[in-house]
Amino acid sequence: LVNYRSRLDIIADILQVVSGDARKTQIMYQANLSYKVLQKYLAEISEASLVHFECGRHCYVLTAKGREFLDGYRQYSRSNSHVEKRLNDVRTKKDALERLSQGE
Amino acid sequence: LVNYRSRLDIIADILQVVSGDARKTQIMYQANLSYKVLQKYLAEISEASLVHFECGRHCYVLTAKGREFLDGYRQYSRSNSHVEKRLNDVRTKKDALERLSQGE
Repeated sequence: LVNYRSRLDIIADILQVVSGDARKTQIMYQANLSYKVLQKYLAEISEASLVHFECGRHCYVLTAKGREFLDGYRQYSRSNSHVEKRLNDVRTKKDALERLSQGE
Repeated sequence: LVNYRSRLDIIADILQVVSGDARKTQIMYQANLSYKVLQKYLAEISEASLVHFECGRHCYVLTAKGREFLDGYRQYSRSNSHVEKRLNDVRTKKDALERLSQGE
């Protein structure tokens, strides 16, 4: 079962690396992204002020807004796993009713 | 906001009426179904042994399997409402992240 990362997952992975201040190569390897994809995302999240490039140190750093995203993402991710488990329970209950109502 | 009943909802509504023993007309009005639709459902749930027709009293009665369905449906319905509220919370969190990541 392959679980592809969504756009939000990838941004969170990048911000997680950047939260310890990081150069582009470091982000690329630790967030497991190709150079091309990373470039695209860095442009987007810089534009959205989630990260800031410090020219002197050649480092990306997290902004307050980036921190807000990362905290919000963790909450979202926890709630999402929880709700997916509950959804599976509900589907199991529904399947049992379908079977009962079809005389199985 | 119109909330159409699913097949399972309709069966549960019928069984709810039948749980107090009921004639066909009574089921039709209390479960709010046309005669044609009720006929179709009564055939299905009789076939699946959820209800039993008592010829003497002209009444439909609930079988043990029908009781099982109704109990299961109530659990399912509660879990489903709960999970839908949680899903909405998760979607709200996700939307907030989308907006943050788009620089809004």
